[in-house]
Amino acid sequence: MDIVTFVGQSIGRWRSQRTAHHLTFRHSEEVQSTIDIEEVEPDHPDVLKLCETYGVAIADISTPFRMTWEGESDWDEDEDEQQTLSGSTVLIPVPDKENPRKGKLLRDQGYAETIAAAGEYHFTDDDTFVLVTSYDRAAAEEKIWFVNPNLRFRVSMIKTSSGTGVLTASFSSETRAQVS
Amino acid sequence: MDIVTFVGQSIGRWRSQRTAHHLTFRHSEEVQSTIDIEEVEPDHPDVLKLCETYGVAIADISTPFRMTWEGESDWDEDEDEQQTLSGSTVLIPVPDKENPRKGKLLRDQGYAETIAAAGEYHFTDDDTFVLVTSYDRAAAEEKIWFVNPNLRFRVSMIKTSSGTGVLTASFSSETRAQVS
Repeated sequence: MDIVTFVGQSIGRWRSQRTAHHLTFRHSEEVQSTIDIEEVEPDHPDVLKLCETYGVAIADISTPFRMTWEGESDWDEDEDEQQTLSGSTVLIPVPDKENPRKGKLLRDQGYAETIAAAGEYHFTDDDTFVLVTSYDRAAAEEKIWFVNPNLRFRVSMIKTSSGTGVLTASFSSETRAQVS
Repeated sequence: MDIVTFVGQSIGRWRSQRTAHHLTFRHSEEVQSTIDIEEVEPDHPDVLKLCETYGVAIADISTPFRMTWEGESDWDEDEDEQQTLSGSTVLIPVPDKENPRKGKLLRDQGYAETIAAAGEYHFTDDDTFVLVTSYDRAAAEEKIWFVNPNLRFRVSMIKTSSGTGVLTASFSSETRAQVS
């Protein structure tokens, strides 16, 4: 598995059912959302800008894509919170030159943050995509794998920078709604 | 990672928060349970009996253990259903003689079945334990990995034997309650 194949398999519209486990409070939250993943041209202004931000050469990137999500939570009825459930981000893989099974992933905003963030990805020997993104005081780890071409699972967690405390874990089952 | 280390890390009492996603109906179910995992002596009558059932020599097994669970679901208030949430099973690893990262796992009953079932396990390069158990008309796949010594994640799914249809997926976050 390499990033080009993985992004290729991901293109399309997905119905996502996500459950977050808040480990400290033993509380869980359900979010239903629609996720659209589409390719973006390497010379798109958003791509050029993000590459410039990180000082990455366009020649080194691979299959940039855009992820757009719109969801509904069962948890917080507050309208301001609800709005954080929709968004869009451009992601740019920068594969390692020596090992195609790993690299960096640039994005213009993360799920949890509103600032740009770059993560490190690699594929395991069973083709699970693993992404680790470090923030100031926390790190996010995400594992995504395909069960079949129309179903993928995603397990995410946020942990403190020291790595010992895990605050939130979430599981998403994503089924393909439509090939775009 | 090998099965002896993995079982060793698993010994103890765990609080499990499990969410099942019923993919067809987009329905989810929460189960809170306590799971006890304890070593069993290789010459325990339950171990001897299960080895005999499968025609496995005692010399070929490794670290047999017992898993006992007791849980509460938010889904079905029917008392008979509730009773299926507690149970106990003996599990016996039979490591492959040439590759210690894989083997068979015997057990006297599965989660979903009341009959004995043997599964095939292996460890991925990021030390995720993967167990596949085939039944007559369905297969169960389970992935378990440790985030740290006191937290492990488990993703399970049941799929039809043809492998194309996935009916149920579940995610458990398990935190250590007490070292026994």
